[in-house]
Amino acid sequence: MSNKRREFIVKSLIGTAGLVVGGLSGAAAAGSKKMEPPYPYKSIDPDMIAEKAYGYYLKGHCAYGVFASILDTLKESVGGPYLGIPGELFEFGRGGINGWGTICGTLNGAAAIISISCKGWKKVIDALYRWYEETPLPMYYPKHPAKYKGVFAASVATSPLCHISVMKWIEKTGFAYDSKARSERCARLTADVAKKTVELLNAYHKGTFKPVSAPGIYKTKMDCMTCHNMKVGSR
Amino acid sequence: MSNKRREFIVKSLIGTAGLVVGGLSGAAAAGSKKMEPPYPYKSIDPDMIAEKAYGYYLKGHCAYGVFASILDTLKESVGGPYLGIPGELFEFGRGGINGWGTICGTLNGAAAIISISCKGWKKVIDALYRWYEETPLPMYYPKHPAKYKGVFAASVATSPLCHISVMKWIEKTGFAYDSKARSERCARLTADVAKKTVELLNAYHKGTFKPVSAPGIYKTKMDCMTCHNMKVGSR
Repeated sequence: MSNKRREFIVKSLIGTAGLVVGGLSGAAAAGSKKMEPPYPYKSIDPDMIAEKAYGYYLKGHCAYGVFASILDTLKESVGGPYLGIPGELFEFGRGGINGWGTICGTLNGAAAIISISCKGWKKVIDALYRWYEETPLPMYYPKHPAKYKGVFAASVATSPLCHISVMKWIEKTGFAYDSKARSERCARLTADVAKKTVELLNAYHKGTFKPVSAPGIYKTKMDCMTCHNMKVGSR
Repeated sequence: MSNKRREFIVKSLIGTAGLVVGGLSGAAAAGSKKMEPPYPYKSIDPDMIAEKAYGYYLKGHCAYGVFASILDTLKESVGGPYLGIPGELFEFGRGGINGWGTICGTLNGAAAIISISCKGWKKVIDALYRWYEETPLPMYYPKHPAKYKGVFAASVATSPLCHISVMKWIEKTGFAYDSKARSERCARLTADVAKKTVELLNAYHKGTFKPVSAPGIYKTKMDCMTCHNMKVGSR
């Protein structure tokens, strides 16, 4: 083998190995026992992520919308351990998990990404969930509304559960639960939750995060009266 | 540089590149747009996974117990795209997501692993959730009980929600919701759900899976009467 040929091979291999080791070291580490969450976090622009999450909802619904939009942003800014995680992992969360109406998909996806990018994930999740229960949503209005163009009345979910959150909004606005307007509402709410999630993560990593109270009893932190004070057989 | 030195570098790089490319091709692919779920699946022994999931519960609770035990098994048998996904991603699911009592953590972790290993994930999740709602659990009795040694009465959850599932068992057995016995019950239930999950996945990939009916209305497939028929202010 000529020296030139050897040098070519060496350079090619250095390039390949560099690319692979540099680009995938995180994925490698994530597969090993040594690199465990929390992974590094870099501040994310809340308004950017709202718009991005809205677009992601249109591709893979609510849980994917929050999880994959933030994940992909961290794949670009941090790389490493985020690279081996597929955003599609949270498509199952749509409609409170495959239409079951349990945990709101946005909150499922948000909790997952918070849990791997933040040591204090328990307090951050509690703050997000309390905010979701109490805040009139949706607030976001998209640059290019995809399914319905109007401005919506906002409703207070009173619960992190998809079914209750949706039905509170249905009561408030009169839209059908299976209408395009309802889907548009969930797309905008996906933007709101993604935005709030990165605001909380940014604050946590800056040291300005303030925990909120979320006492629990009987294996829940949900508001007991949302379900236990309903009229029999009705709401 | 001497020829010997060049050859040494070339061989080292070939080794490194081969190791990295061979061992991580899946993780690399998972990070790209080309390899999307569903990923390949290899049949898993149900009794083996029950015992493994029980042990995993003790390390990372219910959602991690189901998700990571099956994920790690597929990392060993399939490798590839599973390698870049950290099992810790579902630790947040404990106690119906960080103690909120929403979706039972076992069902959250199960839905996630089903969704990336099975094209017909929607039907498989529905079958699992219906089984969970209707089946007296827990059934599993561990080789080495970790937190409580007795045999438990089984209860029917009537719901995929953690809070309801736990409280039905509390009503049946009289244990406290924050007792060691309740934690042991959830560990055994983690084994049961992991076992049922791989039984369904095995059947799906063998072509013997039978879908079950799970009609939905008002953005839920949960049984309406579990919540809407409660006595006011009680159960």
